[in-house]
Amino acid sequence: MRYYPAPESAIDMPDLIEAVKLAFLDHGTGSCEMPPKSYVTLPGGDFRTMPSYLPGLTAAGVKVVNVHPDNRSRGLPTVMGLTVLLDPPTGKPIAILNATGLTDLRTGAAAAVATRALAPVKEGTLGLIGAGRQARSGLLAIGEVFGIESVRVWSRSQKSAERLAAEFSSLDIRVTSVEQAADSDLLLTTTPSISPVIMNDWISDGTHINAIGADAPGKQELDPSLLTRAEVFVDDREQAFHSGEVNVAIRDGLFSPDRIAGTLGEVLTGRAGRSSREAITIFDSTGIAITDLAAASEAMKRGDYIELPFLTGCQ
Amino acid sequence: MRYYPAPESAIDMPDLIEAVKLAFLDHGTGSCEMPPKSYVTLPGGDFRTMPSYLPGLTAAGVKVVNVHPDNRSRGLPTVMGLTVLLDPPTGKPIAILNATGLTDLRTGAAAAVATRALAPVKEGTLGLIGAGRQARSGLLAIGEVFGIESVRVWSRSQKSAERLAAEFSSLDIRVTSVEQAADSDLLLTTTPSISPVIMNDWISDGTHINAIGADAPGKQELDPSLLTRAEVFVDDREQAFHSGEVNVAIRDGLFSPDRIAGTLGEVLTGRAGRSSREAITIFDSTGIAITDLAAASEAMKRGDYIELPFLTGCQ
Repeated sequence: MRYYPAPESAIDMPDLIEAVKLAFLDHGTGSCEMPPKSYVTLPGGDFRTMPSYLPGLTAAGVKVVNVHPDNRSRGLPTVMGLTVLLDPPTGKPIAILNATGLTDLRTGAAAAVATRALAPVKEGTLGLIGAGRQARSGLLAIGEVFGIESVRVWSRSQKSAERLAAEFSSLDIRVTSVEQAADSDLLLTTTPSISPVIMNDWISDGTHINAIGADAPGKQELDPSLLTRAEVFVDDREQAFHSGEVNVAIRDGLFSPDRIAGTLGEVLTGRAGRSSREAITIFDSTGIAITDLAAASEAMKRGDYIELPFLTGCQ
Repeated sequence: MRYYPAPESAIDMPDLIEAVKLAFLDHGTGSCEMPPKSYVTLPGGDFRTMPSYLPGLTAAGVKVVNVHPDNRSRGLPTVMGLTVLLDPPTGKPIAILNATGLTDLRTGAAAAVATRALAPVKEGTLGLIGAGRQARSGLLAIGEVFGIESVRVWSRSQKSAERLAAEFSSLDIRVTSVEQAADSDLLLTTTPSISPVIMNDWISDGTHINAIGADAPGKQELDPSLLTRAEVFVDDREQAFHSGEVNVAIRDGLFSPDRIAGTLGEVLTGRAGRSSREAITIFDSTGIAITDLAAASEAMKRGDYIELPFLTGCQ
């Protein structure tokens, strides 16, 4: 059994995007197994358990991931994860991967897959709403599939926005107001907000939005009237209704689940898609278990690992 | 982060029985968190994910465990497991334990807790139906709480029964027919049967039965008319109805869920119990996640481990 302490460092982003796309394709054809994410409440946070099986990558396993909003004050990330991979034909554990960095990368890769499938243009301006780890990995991933002409960054923390802009100074990137950042061809929203950050009026026709931040009940980043104006695609219907960008609007009776235009898997298999050049499309990303499997499988190809004994009592 | 390759070797059974009892107590008072076990089907088997949080032991985590019935032909156990423990206040992974042997031990410990709480006598004859790993750990655990005068072992495989009898030759133990083994003061059934192995007529009044084998839909070891004659206690109602000894009888309309006499936690907190010396009591054990946490916590106290880096990107 292998342990990968820092598998994210071995990831090749274009390969990861293809692996994540394959996961969404299997989701679209219904050939994967993915029970609902389960939540356990802890003091000061929670942890989620995400089991799945992806025949297309011969991968099975579970990601265990916490969310503790006050961790930063303790010098720890809000979100940390471990993925356990099993050998599908025997069920034997074959690898454990630190999934803390992988989670960011697979989230970015999912946004890239959605951008390629749903954005009406191949190049243009990118607006980043939020400037943390998911903004960073999203920017890296989107750069692989979209010609980024310039980047506008906004964050509630000016310092975070400036740090991100400095890190990517080889791009045409600048810190702006939230309205200016929202006025982009492509948007990536990654805030932990529980009230709308992006107003409907700020968004032009033909925009594609990757809405990443909302991943728990009560979270939302977008004006509910933007949801009804747009064509909303989800990674997984059940998860999105429970904890995605649409969860608050559904709870408040402002958005009906039957308005969902499709899943990303349905888009990739040709059964759904944007209706016109002018439509606004939203990818409501909650983060699904099979993309964690895809990331873990990619990491296993090249990552450094420690070999561990797994004693079974059978010789 | 620690990895425990063979934590079962460090377990002190009396301590484990107390830790498992504490877990059932927390279950009885409703102070633990335990979402339903989730199942993922794989080629040739399945795997189950069992998350939970046990405030009484300050323990949180997940067991991932497979069931692949044909593994023995490949030199692997049918069941292998890994438990991931998290630090409850931060969600950080603190340990990974090989749970293959621990699973047997905690199952035995649960049977011991049930025996102490439900058997009408403190000593007598023990009948083992099935002679595999769970029979072995059950015998070890029950021996800590019950005065075993003699043991009668039956298994579909005569060889397994003889091997177990040889291993415990310091006891008054012998291989018998299934009827003779069933005619004991205390019974432990650990077969993977999908049809009744123990008939109602064979069981005397005042017997206590630990029914361990049924842990998936379609499995059963006991004559349905024995279920209606007896007082049936479960580890967890939801799990028992889905996959415990009662699942087939409920499905077939031969047993009603409202006949359950209580959970083991309710027995331990004094809200349920056997009604008389003559009653037959059955403990329907499916295996619950908080007992895996209890076993992992015990193992962490004394087990040998390998220290692993867990890099978080925060310094």
